[in-house]
Amino acid sequence: MSSSPKLQQRLQLFGENIRRVRLERSLSQEHLAHAAGVHRTYLGSVERGERNVALANCYAIADALGVPLEDLLRAPQ
Amino acid sequence: MSSSPKLQQRLQLFGENIRRVRLERSLSQEHLAHAAGVHRTYLGSVERGERNVALANCYAIADALGVPLEDLLRAPQ
Repeated sequence: MSSSPKLQQRLQLFGENIRRVRLERSLSQEHLAHAAGVHRTYLGSVERGERNVALANCYAIADALGVPLEDLLRAPQ
Repeated sequence: MSSSPKLQQRLQLFGENIRRVRLERSLSQEHLAHAAGVHRTYLGSVERGERNVALANCYAIADALGVPLEDLLRAPQ
């Protein structure tokens, strides 16, 4: 996906946060993907910041992790 | 767009927040749409909660309003 550097940073932060929380919960990509109703390879690309994710999937992933979406959009506190 | 009631509520909250902040800043839909690089009719449908907006446009709208995206995703404080 082509995008501005700032958007790219934001998508990468989103993906890194998903990955961090997923690992904190000892979930595999496959488990989280299934819980969120997305494909494992799609989740992998989201975690790498390669996807311009739409809100429905943002919320599905946040809900499957049990965190507010807002927490996945900002740097860890 | 067909979606779960919960997602629909979330998209409506997002749209209502955009509209509220836009009006607080006395911006027309046309002005905000131009600033965010989206079409006015698209912004209208976002404000009505009819769009599963992807992060690039979420951030473009938040940036054009001068608020963190997180503020547009939750109920007003």
